[in-house]
Amino acid sequence: MKDESIEAILAAVKAGDLSIEAAKQQLMMPKEIHLEGAVLDLQRASRQGFPEVVYCEGKTDEQCVTIFKALNERYDTFMGTRARPVLYELLKDEIPDIRYDESSRILYVQRNTRNVNGDRVIAVVTAGTSDIPVAEEAALTAELMGNMVRRVYDVGVAGIHRLFNRLDDITSANVVIVVAGMEGALASVVGGLVTKPVIAVPTSVGYGASFKGMTALLAMLNSCAAGVGVVNIDNGFGAGRMAHVINSCR
Amino acid sequence: MKDESIEAILAAVKAGDLSIEAAKQQLMMPKEIHLEGAVLDLQRASRQGFPEVVYCEGKTDEQCVTIFKALNERYDTFMGTRARPVLYELLKDEIPDIRYDESSRILYVQRNTRNVNGDRVIAVVTAGTSDIPVAEEAALTAELMGNMVRRVYDVGVAGIHRLFNRLDDITSANVVIVVAGMEGALASVVGGLVTKPVIAVPTSVGYGASFKGMTALLAMLNSCAAGVGVVNIDNGFGAGRMAHVINSCR
Amino acid sequence: MKDESIEAILAAVKAGDLSIEAAKQQLMMPKEIHLEGAVLDLQRASRQGFPEVVYCEGKTDEQCVTIFKALNERYDTFMGTRARPVLYELLKDEIPDIRYDESSRILYVQRNTRNVNGDRVIAVVTAGTSDIPVAEEAALTAELMGNMVRRVYDVGVAGIHRLFNRLDDITSANVVIVVAGMEGALASVVGGLVTKPVIAVPTSVGYGASFKGMTALLAMLNSCAAGVGVVNIDNGFGAGRMAHVINSCR
Amino acid sequence: MKDESIEAILAAVKAGDLSIEAAKQQLMMPKEIHLEGAVLDLQRASRQGFPEVVYCEGKTDEQCVTIFKALNERYDTFMGTRARPVLYELLKDEIPDIRYDESSRILYVQRNTRNVNGDRVIAVVTAGTSDIPVAEEAALTAELMGNMVRRVYDVGVAGIHRLFNRLDDITSANVVIVVAGMEGALASVVGGLVTKPVIAVPTSVGYGASFKGMTALLAMLNSCAAGVGVVNIDNGFGAGRMAHVINSCR
Amino acid sequence: MKDESIEAILAAVKAGDLSIEAAKQQLMMPKEIHLEGAVLDLQRASRQGFPEVVYCEGKTDEQCVTIFKALNERYDTFMGTRARPVLYELLKDEIPDIRYDESSRILYVQRNTRNVNGDRVIAVVTAGTSDIPVAEEAALTAELMGNMVRRVYDVGVAGIHRLFNRLDDITSANVVIVVAGMEGALASVVGGLVTKPVIAVPTSVGYGASFKGMTALLAMLNSCAAGVGVVNIDNGFGAGRMAHVINSCR
Amino acid sequence: MKDESIEAILAAVKAGDLSIEAAKQQLMMPKEIHLEGAVLDLQRASRQGFPEVVYCEGKTDEQCVTIFKALNERYDTFMGTRARPVLYELLKDEIPDIRYDESSRILYVQRNTRNVNGDRVIAVVTAGTSDIPVAEEAALTAELMGNMVRRVYDVGVAGIHRLFNRLDDITSANVVIVVAGMEGALASVVGGLVTKPVIAVPTSVGYGASFKGMTALLAMLNSCAAGVGVVNIDNGFGAGRMAHVINSCR
Amino acid sequence: MKDESIEAILAAVKAGDLSIEAAKQQLMMPKEIHLEGAVLDLQRASRQGFPEVVYCEGKTDEQCVTIFKALNERYDTFMGTRARPVLYELLKDEIPDIRYDESSRILYVQRNTRNVNGDRVIAVVTAGTSDIPVAEEAALTAELMGNMVRRVYDVGVAGIHRLFNRLDDITSANVVIVVAGMEGALASVVGGLVTKPVIAVPTSVGYGASFKGMTALLAMLNSCAAGVGVVNIDNGFGAGRMAHVINSCR
Amino acid sequence: MKDESIEAILAAVKAGDLSIEAAKQQLMMPKEIHLEGAVLDLQRASRQGFPEVVYCEGKTDEQCVTIFKALNERYDTFMGTRARPVLYELLKDEIPDIRYDESSRILYVQRNTRNVNGDRVIAVVTAGTSDIPVAEEAALTAELMGNMVRRVYDVGVAGIHRLFNRLDDITSANVVIVVAGMEGALASVVGGLVTKPVIAVPTSVGYGASFKGMTALLAMLNSCAAGVGVVNIDNGFGAGRMAHVINSCR
Repeated sequence: MKDESIEAILAAVKAGDLSIEAAKQQLMMPKEIHLEGAVLDLQRASRQGFPEVVYCEGKTDEQCVTIFKALNERYDTFMGTRARPVLYELLKDEIPDIRYDESSRILYVQRNTRNVNGDRVIAVVTAGTSDIPVAEEAALTAELMGNMVRRVYDVGVAGIHRLFNRLDDITSANVVIVVAGMEGALASVVGGLVTKPVIAVPTSVGYGASFKGMTALLAMLNSCAAGVGVVNIDNGFGAGRMAHVINSCR
Repeated sequence: MKDESIEAILAAVKAGDLSIEAAKQQLMMPKEIHLEGAVLDLQRASRQGFPEVVYCEGKTDEQCVTIFKALNERYDTFMGTRARPVLYELLKDEIPDIRYDESSRILYVQRNTRNVNGDRVIAVVTAGTSDIPVAEEAALTAELMGNMVRRVYDVGVAGIHRLFNRLDDITSANVVIVVAGMEGALASVVGGLVTKPVIAVPTSVGYGASFKGMTALLAMLNSCAAGVGVVNIDNGFGAGRMAHVINSCR
Repeated sequence: MKDESIEAILAAVKAGDLSIEAAKQQLMMPKEIHLEGAVLDLQRASRQGFPEVVYCEGKTDEQCVTIFKALNERYDTFMGTRARPVLYELLKDEIPDIRYDESSRILYVQRNTRNVNGDRVIAVVTAGTSDIPVAEEAALTAELMGNMVRRVYDVGVAGIHRLFNRLDDITSANVVIVVAGMEGALASVVGGLVTKPVIAVPTSVGYGASFKGMTALLAMLNSCAAGVGVVNIDNGFGAGRMAHVINSCR
Repeated sequence: MKDESIEAILAAVKAGDLSIEAAKQQLMMPKEIHLEGAVLDLQRASRQGFPEVVYCEGKTDEQCVTIFKALNERYDTFMGTRARPVLYELLKDEIPDIRYDESSRILYVQRNTRNVNGDRVIAVVTAGTSDIPVAEEAALTAELMGNMVRRVYDVGVAGIHRLFNRLDDITSANVVIVVAGMEGALASVVGGLVTKPVIAVPTSVGYGASFKGMTALLAMLNSCAAGVGVVNIDNGFGAGRMAHVINSCR
Repeated sequence: MKDESIEAILAAVKAGDLSIEAAKQQLMMPKEIHLEGAVLDLQRASRQGFPEVVYCEGKTDEQCVTIFKALNERYDTFMGTRARPVLYELLKDEIPDIRYDESSRILYVQRNTRNVNGDRVIAVVTAGTSDIPVAEEAALTAELMGNMVRRVYDVGVAGIHRLFNRLDDITSANVVIVVAGMEGALASVVGGLVTKPVIAVPTSVGYGASFKGMTALLAMLNSCAAGVGVVNIDNGFGAGRMAHVINSCR
Repeated sequence: MKDESIEAILAAVKAGDLSIEAAKQQLMMPKEIHLEGAVLDLQRASRQGFPEVVYCEGKTDEQCVTIFKALNERYDTFMGTRARPVLYELLKDEIPDIRYDESSRILYVQRNTRNVNGDRVIAVVTAGTSDIPVAEEAALTAELMGNMVRRVYDVGVAGIHRLFNRLDDITSANVVIVVAGMEGALASVVGGLVTKPVIAVPTSVGYGASFKGMTALLAMLNSCAAGVGVVNIDNGFGAGRMAHVINSCR
Repeated sequence: MKDESIEAILAAVKAGDLSIEAAKQQLMMPKEIHLEGAVLDLQRASRQGFPEVVYCEGKTDEQCVTIFKALNERYDTFMGTRARPVLYELLKDEIPDIRYDESSRILYVQRNTRNVNGDRVIAVVTAGTSDIPVAEEAALTAELMGNMVRRVYDVGVAGIHRLFNRLDDITSANVVIVVAGMEGALASVVGGLVTKPVIAVPTSVGYGASFKGMTALLAMLNSCAAGVGVVNIDNGFGAGRMAHVINSCR
Repeated sequence: MKDESIEAILAAVKAGDLSIEAAKQQLMMPKEIHLEGAVLDLQRASRQGFPEVVYCEGKTDEQCVTIFKALNERYDTFMGTRARPVLYELLKDEIPDIRYDESSRILYVQRNTRNVNGDRVIAVVTAGTSDIPVAEEAALTAELMGNMVRRVYDVGVAGIHRLFNRLDDITSANVVIVVAGMEGALASVVGGLVTKPVIAVPTSVGYGASFKGMTALLAMLNSCAAGVGVVNIDNGFGAGRMAHVINSCR
C-alpha cells in the first residue's frame, strides 16, 4: 500500500509532485470503499490491527454479501457478528473456506492463525451453561484476532466450589472475561480473586426481573471489586475485542 | 374551493345571505370527510402544505384502503407511513401509479414533482447501514413534500474520517437530518460541525442496553452540541416533515 | 486574524515559507485558548455565529470567572447559562455592563443589539406561569443572538380558549417554541395549528408521575402533530439556539 | 335466591332453626361455585349489578368454556374480555346466542337489553382510528351493563377542529371516556372543555418512546385538567365499567 | 355578565349593532384577565362550577399574591393548592378571612358554605396515618366545592378488620376516594367491596422500592377490582375535584 | 380480655344474652383504639405475637407520641422504626425506660427479654461496614421479638476469604439475613453455601447506577441460589420480622 | 461415598497416606462431573437436601438430555424447570418413569415419595386462575422435595369473601406461598392475616402497566404487612424451594 | 510476613509441627484485622498490589478514622475515596503527611512514589470542565498506584478540533480513560481513534434527561467503537484502578 501519511503528502507538495488541490483532497479523504449504503473502512486493519468487523443485524442479505465479498478481496482473516445462517449459504460457494459458528453466530474466514499475542492466555469464564453462546462470541473473536483462549464454563456462585476448582485456570490468565446473566455475581467474586484485568459481560439469561440482562449489567457496574470494566448486554464481541487490545499492550 | 373564512361567513350573515343558525354551523364545523371510524381532514393540505399523511399501523386494511381512495380523489401527491406490502396489492389496480418503497415502508402517489423549496438541500446522514430504512423514510417524505435531498450514509463516529470525507456534502445543506442508533453520538459531532438546523432521529438499531432506541434518544437529547432538535425513535417521517417546514421558511 | 485556511497553509509550504513539520502542526491544531481545565474555542464565533456559551453548572466559581474574563477580552456579546448569582457579584466590577437575569439564570453582556434576523419573530409560548423561567432562558438566548421574540405565556390546554385568543401572535411567527411541563399537551395542539417549525421544551414543572419533566418529554416526542423537534428537559437555551439557527436560514 | 343476610342468619340462630356451628359456617362462607381452579362469585351480580366478568387471557380454553357455561346457567347477560376467537367456536353450539366482537375481543351473551341508566349517555371519544379496538371494549362493556353510548372517533388534537366539530356530542353526555395513545393529549383538552366526569384510557398505539402506552398513561395522569381519572393501558373494560358505575349514581 | 353567546353575537351582527371585525374579535376572544405572566380564566367558574384553582408550586410569591387578589375581587369561595405558609402571611391583611390548612397546604377563602350536592357523601379513606395530608387535600377540596365529606382514616389491609369495622361508612357514600402509599392494596380491596365510583390516589408514602409513589400508582392502575379511576401521585386535589364532578351528576 | 370469639357471640345470641343487632355489631367490629388519625390494632399482639410496630416516617411528632403512650399503657415490649431522635426526647420523661438506637433509628421499650425462640440463632450478615445501620434494624427487631442474633459484618465478596473465615458462624444459624448494597452479590454466595432460609435485604449503599438500592434489589431477586426471599430496600425491620416468624415455626 | 471432609484429608496427610500435593488437590477440588459446557454439582444433594435442579431455558436439547441422564444415574428424585415438551419426548424411552407437568413445565422423576417434613403443610394460594401455572411450579417443587401441599386457588381480593371462605386452609399451614399478578394485593392481605412465614411470588399475569409482573413485584416488596419475603417474577420454583427450606427448620 | 501458603501449612502438618485442628483453622482463616464493624483485609496488598482502598461514604467518622490508623501502621501508601474534609481534620495530627485532594475527594498518604509501571502513560481525557472532579479521582488513583498520568481536559465533541489538537497526547498513551457526562459521545470518538484499551467513565454532569449520568452510561455501553469497557457513573476510582491493572500487564 502506498505511503499516505501526512508527512509524505506534504513532502510531495514541497517537491512539486502534488498540486495543492490534490494534496488537500488526500489530506481530507482517507481511502475507503463505497458500497451501496455502506462505507468499508480500509484503514481500520492497519489502524486497529484487524479489518472492520461486520455487524450483520439490521443489514439486508444483499448488503452483508457485498461487504463480505469486498473483505474477502483484501484480507486473510475477517469476521461478521450476529450473522444469520442464510448468509453462510449465500457465501459458501464464492468463499469456500468461510465458516459459520452456530453457537456464537459468527461468520468468518480465518486464513491466518498466528498467535499475535504469544502465550498470553485470555480466560473466558461463564456462570452457567446458558451463557455459553455469548462466551463463544468473545472467545472466537479473541482467537480470530490472534489470541490463545481458555474456556472455564459453568462455574457460577450458587456452587462456589466449582469456581475454586478452576481458580488456577483463571488466575494464570493475562486477561479474564466473565460472562454471566441473572444477578451477575460471578464478576464480583472473580474480580476479587484475580489481579489481572477483568471484563464483565452481562447476558440476557434469566427471566422476570432480570429484565433481559439489565439486572446483570447494573450489578456488574456496581461491583464491589474495583477495576472491572463492563460491556453491553450479550456483547461477547466487544469483550473479546477489548481483551485482545489489552493483551496486545506491552 | 369556496371561501370559508370567518370574514366571508360574517359578511354573508350581514348581507342576509346566511341564517344565523347556518352561520353558526359553518363557524363551528370546518370541512372534513367522515369515513368509517376515521375523519379525513380536508383543510390540512392548505393549512400545512401537504395532505394528511396516513399512519397505517393499527388501522385495518379496510380502513387504510378507504382513506387512500378518498385521498386519491382529491390530491395529486399523498402518502402513508408504516404501510404493509398488502396495502399496495389492494390498491394498485385502482390507483395504477401508486408506489411502495420497501425500505421505508412508505406507500405513496407522486404526481407532482415540483421542488417547492428550490435548490435548498436537505442532507440525510446515517451512522450505519442498518439505519437506512429510517433515513429513507425521512428522505422520501421530504422529497414527496417538494425538497431536494442528499443522502450521506454510513459515516458513524467509530471511523470518524468517513464523516470528514463527506463533510462538504453535509455543511452545504440547508437542513441536516442525522439518523443514528446505538449511542447516537453522530448527532453531537455533526451538531458541532454545522451551522444549520440539525434534526436528530434516534433509531432502534442496537441490542441489550440500547433498549430499542431509548439510549440513542436520551443521548441525542443531551447533546453537548446546542440546538439539536430530536424526534421520536425511528420517526423518519417526523424528521422529514420538520426539515421540510424549516426549508420552507424564508 | 491571519489566514489559517488549509489552502493558505499548503501554499506556504509550496512556497517554502513553512516547514513541513510546522505545517503539519498548523493543520492539526486550530486556535483556541487553554485556560485551567478549560479550552475556550475561539473559532466558534465565526463558525456558529455566536461565541461559545458557558455552561456554568459543575464549574467552580474560579473557572467561570476566568472564562468570562477571557470572553470579555474578545467579544461584544456573550453569555453563560445556569449561572449562580454569586458569579454576577464576582464579575460586575471588572465587567460593569454585565447583566444577570434572575428568572432565566443567564449571565450576559450585550453590547451588540442588532437584529441579525430582521423582523422574523420567534414566538415563545408557555402552558403555565411556572414554565416562565425556562421560557425566559429560551427568549433571552434568542434575543442575545439577534432575534425578535414574542412572549405568549400561560395559555395551556386546560382552558383552551386562552390559546385561541393568542393564536394570531403564534401563527404569525417564523418559529415557535412551546414550553410546557406536566403532560406537555400544548406542543401537540400548537403543532397542529401552525405551519412553521415548532420546537418543544419539556419542563420539570409538575409532581408525582411527572417524573421531573420525563412525562412532558415523552409526550412531546410522541406528538401526533408531525414535525415537532424536542430538546432536553428545561433546556430553554437549546431551544432558543435552535430557533435562532432556523431563523437564520434563508 | 334465599335470604342470606347476617340479620336473617342471626334470627334463625335465635329461633333455634340454625345451629351455632352451621350459622358460623354461613357467616363465614358466602355462596360461590368452585370450578376447576376457579371460584365463580355468585354474589357479584347482586353486589355490583353485573355478573363477574371473565378475564380470558391466561386461562386455558377449558377453563374459559367451563366458566362461560356456568354463567350461562345463571344469568341473562354476561361477558368475557380479551377472548380468543376459538372460544366463540367452542361455545356457539351450546350457547347459540353467544356473540363475539372481533374489534374489542369481547365474548358475550346479551339477553337483557334494558337501559338501566335511562337516557344518560356515555360518550366514548378516540384520538385516532387505531384507538378504536380499545374504545369498542369500553363502549360494548357499557352497553352490556345497560347504558346508552355515543361514539365520537378520530378527533385527536393534531387537527383540533375535528374535536370542536363534535363538541356538542361530547359535552351533552353524562360521562366521557377519552381513549388515546401516543401522547394522550386529547384527555387534557377534553378535560378542560367538559364539566362531566372524564375517564382517560391510554392505549398502546404508537411506537418508539410511546413505550407501549406508558407515555400516554403518564401524560394522562399529569393532565393539567384537574379531575380526570385514569385506568390501565388498553383497559377499555375498566373505563366502561367505571362509566357505568358513575352513570348509575343518582 | 353580559350575554356573550355565539348566537347573541351573530344576532348583533345581523342587526348591524356589531361590525364584522368586532364580532370576529369577540368570537375569537373569551374574557379573561391578563396578569403578569398569568392568564386568569374568568369563564371557568361558570363553565366548571368553581373558579380556577391556583397551583402555587413554581409560581413566585408575587405571582401568587396577584392571582389571589384578582380572585378575591370576583369570587366568594376560591382556593390554591401546594401553597407555602408565607403566602398566607402575605395575604391575611388584605383578605382577612383567608385560611391556610397546614396539613393539606391549601390556601382558601370560603364565604359560601352551601352543600351544592346535598346529602351525597364523599368518603375519603386512607391506608395509614402518613397518608392523611393527601387525604385532607382531597377532603377540603371537595368541601370547598360544596360536598359533604366523611373521613375514614388508617384502615389499611395489614389489619383488614380495621377496614371491615368502618365498612358501612364507606359503602353508604356516593363516591369513595381511597388514599394509599406503599403497595396501595387498599384500593383493590375497597374497589371489590363497594358499588359506587372509586377514585384511587397513590401517595409517596414509603421508601426504597416504593419509588416515591410509583409502586402504589402502578398497583392501583392494575387493580383487579374493575372500575377504579386513578389520579397522579399525591394528587388529592384532583381526586377531590373528580369526586365533586361525579357527585354533581344526576 | 373477655372472650370475643365468634362462637361465644353466637352462643350469647342463642341464650338471649345478646340482641341480634348487638351481636352483629360485635361480629363486625373487632376491638381497637381510635387515636387522632390512627387506629391502634389491639389484637395484633395476640394475632402476630408482637404489638403493632409504629412506622414513624410521615407521622407528625404528635401522632407518634400519642401512639407510643397508648402502647406503653398496654404492652411490656414494643417498638417504632425510622424514628427521629426528637421522639426520644419527647417521650423519655413519661417513659423512662424507653431507648433509642441511633444506628438503626429504632425507638423501643424492652421490659421482656425472654428468648421465645430458645437457642435458635438468627445470623445477620453484611457485605460492608456501610450496611450496618440496616443490619442493626434487622438484628434489634429480631432481638426485641425474642430471638438470639449473631452479627457477621463486613464480609463482602470482594475479599471472599473474609466470608469463609466466618462461615461456621453463618452455617450454624437457623435463619440467615444477608444485608448488602451495590451489586448485592453476597446474597447469592451465601445462598449457595447454607441450607437454612436466607432473607436478603438490599441496601441503598452505593452511588451512580446502584440507583439507591435498586440494583442490589434486582440482583437479589435474580439470585442463582434458589430459595432466597427478598424484602424492600433498607427494610431491615421486615427481614428481622420474617426471620422471627420463621424461627418461631416448629 | 467416601469421607472427603477436611479433617479426614488432613489426618491422611499426617499419617503419610496422602502426599501434600494430592491433599492440596483434594482440598481445592470438591467432586463434580464435567459434562460438555456444564458442571454437575454432586455435592449439592447432601449439602442442600436435593440434587441440583436443572434450569432448562437457554440450554440446548443436547445439554439438557445429557444432564438428565447423568442425574438419573445417581438420584432417585430430581427435576428440571422451564422444560420444553420435546425434552420429555427425548428422554421418555431411556427414563420410562420420567414425568412432564404441562402446566408448570416441570420435567421430573419421583421415585422417592417420602414426606420428609411430615404433616407440616405448605399452602399455595393464588389470586386468579391465570396464576395457576406459577403456583403449580411452586407446589410441585415442594412436593418433590418431600412436603405436603394444600392448593387454595382463585381467591383474589376483588371478591375478598372468597379468601375468607378458605382462611382456615391458609392459617393452618406452616408456610404460605401467595401467587398473584396484576397489583399483587393478595400478598398484603394474607400477610396481615397469618402468623406463619409468607413467600410472595409476583406473576406476569396482567397487561399494560403491569409491565410483565414488575408492578406485582414492586407491590409485594412494599407490602404494609411486614415479614413477607419476595422472589422473582414467575419464580414458582424459588418459592417452593424456600418454603421447603423453612419447612425443614426445626 | 511468615509463609502462609497452603503448601507450607501442609508441610508443617506432615512434620508434626502443626496440629490438624490448628492447620484447619489456618486453612480456613486468612489473616485480617477485625475492627469495629469492619474487617481490614491484610492480604489484599500482596494479592492485588495495593492496600485495600477505603470507601468512606456510609461509614461513620469513627469507623473511617479507625481504618485509616490501622492502614497507617502497616503501609507506606494508601487511600480512601469519597472522603469528607472533616476526616482530614481528624487525622492530620496523627498522620502528618496525610493529604486531602478537594476536587477528587481522595484522602491519601503517599510515601512511595516509585513508578511501578515505568513510562507507560495513562491518559485521562474529559469532555468538559465539569467532568474534572471524576477525572481527578481516576488520575490520582492511578498515580498513587504507581503510574504516570497525562491529563487531557475539556476536549468534548461539540468542538471536535479541540480533540484533534490533543490527539497525539491520547494516542501515545498505553491506556486511555475517557470521562464524560451528558451524552458521553467522546468515548465513542476516542474509541474509534486509538488502538489502546479505552475505559469509559460516565459522569453525572448534565440535567433533565441526563438522569444523573444514566444517559452517558447507556451511551458508552452502546458505543459503536468496539472494545470500550465501562465503569459505574462517577467511578473515577474504578477506572484508575482498572487502568493500573492493565498497565501492569506485560
